[in-house]
Amino acid sequence: MKLTFLGTSSATPTRKRNVSAVALTFVQRGAWWLFDCGEGTQHQILRSPLKLGRLERIFITHLHGDHVFGLPGVLASRSLADSADEPLTIHGPAGIKRFVTNALGSTNTHLAYPLRFAEIYLTSTGISTVLTDADVRVDCAPLSHGVTSFGFAVIEADKAGRLEVDRLRELGVPQGPLYAQLKAGKSITLPDGRTVDGREFVGSPIQGRKIVICGDTTPTPNTVELARDADVLVHEATFIDEDADLAAKANHSTALQAGRAAAKANARVLILTHFSPRYDAADNQRMPQLLDEAKSAFAETLPAEDLWTYSVARNTDG
Amino acid sequence: MKLTFLGTSSATPTRKRNVSAVALTFVQRGAWWLFDCGEGTQHQILRSPLKLGRLERIFITHLHGDHVFGLPGVLASRSLADSADEPLTIHGPAGIKRFVTNALGSTNTHLAYPLRFAEIYLTSTGISTVLTDADVRVDCAPLSHGVTSFGFAVIEADKAGRLEVDRLRELGVPQGPLYAQLKAGKSITLPDGRTVDGREFVGSPIQGRKIVICGDTTPTPNTVELARDADVLVHEATFIDEDADLAAKANHSTALQAGRAAAKANARVLILTHFSPRYDAADNQRMPQLLDEAKSAFAETLPAEDLWTYSVARNTDG
Repeated sequence: MKLTFLGTSSATPTRKRNVSAVALTFVQRGAWWLFDCGEGTQHQILRSPLKLGRLERIFITHLHGDHVFGLPGVLASRSLADSADEPLTIHGPAGIKRFVTNALGSTNTHLAYPLRFAEIYLTSTGISTVLTDADVRVDCAPLSHGVTSFGFAVIEADKAGRLEVDRLRELGVPQGPLYAQLKAGKSITLPDGRTVDGREFVGSPIQGRKIVICGDTTPTPNTVELARDADVLVHEATFIDEDADLAAKANHSTALQAGRAAAKANARVLILTHFSPRYDAADNQRMPQLLDEAKSAFAETLPAEDLWTYSVARNTDG
Repeated sequence: MKLTFLGTSSATPTRKRNVSAVALTFVQRGAWWLFDCGEGTQHQILRSPLKLGRLERIFITHLHGDHVFGLPGVLASRSLADSADEPLTIHGPAGIKRFVTNALGSTNTHLAYPLRFAEIYLTSTGISTVLTDADVRVDCAPLSHGVTSFGFAVIEADKAGRLEVDRLRELGVPQGPLYAQLKAGKSITLPDGRTVDGREFVGSPIQGRKIVICGDTTPTPNTVELARDADVLVHEATFIDEDADLAAKANHSTALQAGRAAAKANARVLILTHFSPRYDAADNQRMPQLLDEAKSAFAETLPAEDLWTYSVARNTDG
């Protein structure tokens, strides 16, 4: 799995950063999901290796313009892409369907594929599962941003451990369908009468990865809970610590607060995004300071840049 | 007056061309109007000298996504620009208000300035005037595109001719308030009893410029009528002549058809825009052919490029 950042600016685009969007690619399948879709996301996709025809799902964290104004364009252009007849599902807060259907309806836009909506109505103030399939589960938690704002955790299913083929060969177990039974943990009896227990020849399960992408938020315990032991936490860092009062007023976080959340959650890596354009001004470069503030709380912090791709490695510690 | 092309691709953006938008700047006032607003228009504005705070009016030719999906973003970002309290008016087909208010309402977007709508309901199948102020008039005509699609003509008011000051001095007419009366065409009596008729000392009126910007359309007599004697006609040229059947099916024009319209209208200059991305493909460069086809019907044809500015000179021929 890998993350491609398509927009890393808050509120308005700058010449270097577009507004919010991040792609999660399932490398083996070649399919990808999009998290938020600020205006110009389809333009960023054009500049990346991502193909609109392989986009399967869109998750919207919250209904602010800089996170959704690119949706109608992405949906319309996907109709003109290859594999455009594959269905697409949009997950997001109540109201996302109205926004999209009005934009498409007002402009007489007809899509070449089935568009489905999965509006999220949480019945718990904690973590809920909003999607489960064979390979992956998506959990969701409400954050704190004035309007409904979600964090999403994408959690890979654990995989069975590796079959120790060399040891089986040494024992003279013939290759073939028996190997699949052994890998599934079954016992088999060989022609010579010996019994082989698969469980003794399968390595420990390979733990699935956990990727957490949060919408805009002030610090809240739900961020920490959702990001518990995550391989990657993607968190907004709109302000520097000096502007913590602005962050609080606007229901945003400082980089330092993002770092503290990652530390409390025991995440492996923190990726910062959603930076206020004010720190990128030619005469006021504060981005190094912003990054240092987060690192003071959580060393493994990386700042996102537009079109930067981060490959999520498996945790091989212990 | 000058035109700045912010998007010149049809349907979808390419790496070189954004979707439709063109700015008309009133150089002396520093204010500007926007015609159509495809997704990413605010990004193009960032790359141009245009300032969102000086945007006074937006004219929408028709309600297709590639002409309006950038509106919510332009409106929201204008709230954060300097002079953001100045009112803004959107002129366009019925339905534009619903599209905009739903997009802003769904995303809790509050503007810092009064936003006004002037939906256009034509009562004539010909040309109607939709705006008149001291310096300029805007005429509008319905074109032919399947959905309501307008062409707009921006027509400067004529200015009084120049007062021939040198000749008046030779006659000994004293400088001062009398000159204003003479310029207004009045007669005055000098202290020595001579009568001077202002009309004899004022050059011929300076003709206002006429700029015509058409929405998407197949060939229609209204284009020619609206563009009669225009200094500039901006016309779509989605297809090459070989694809005239595609143009007809999609209610679009070929470059040749645009050239013919300019010729019939006796326009001075034709600017082509809204090119199908298919002709810009690396392995299929057909843009020179497209331009040549238009020139075969109308020599004074120019192809628009993104961020290209064209200064509209006054017609000084006779």
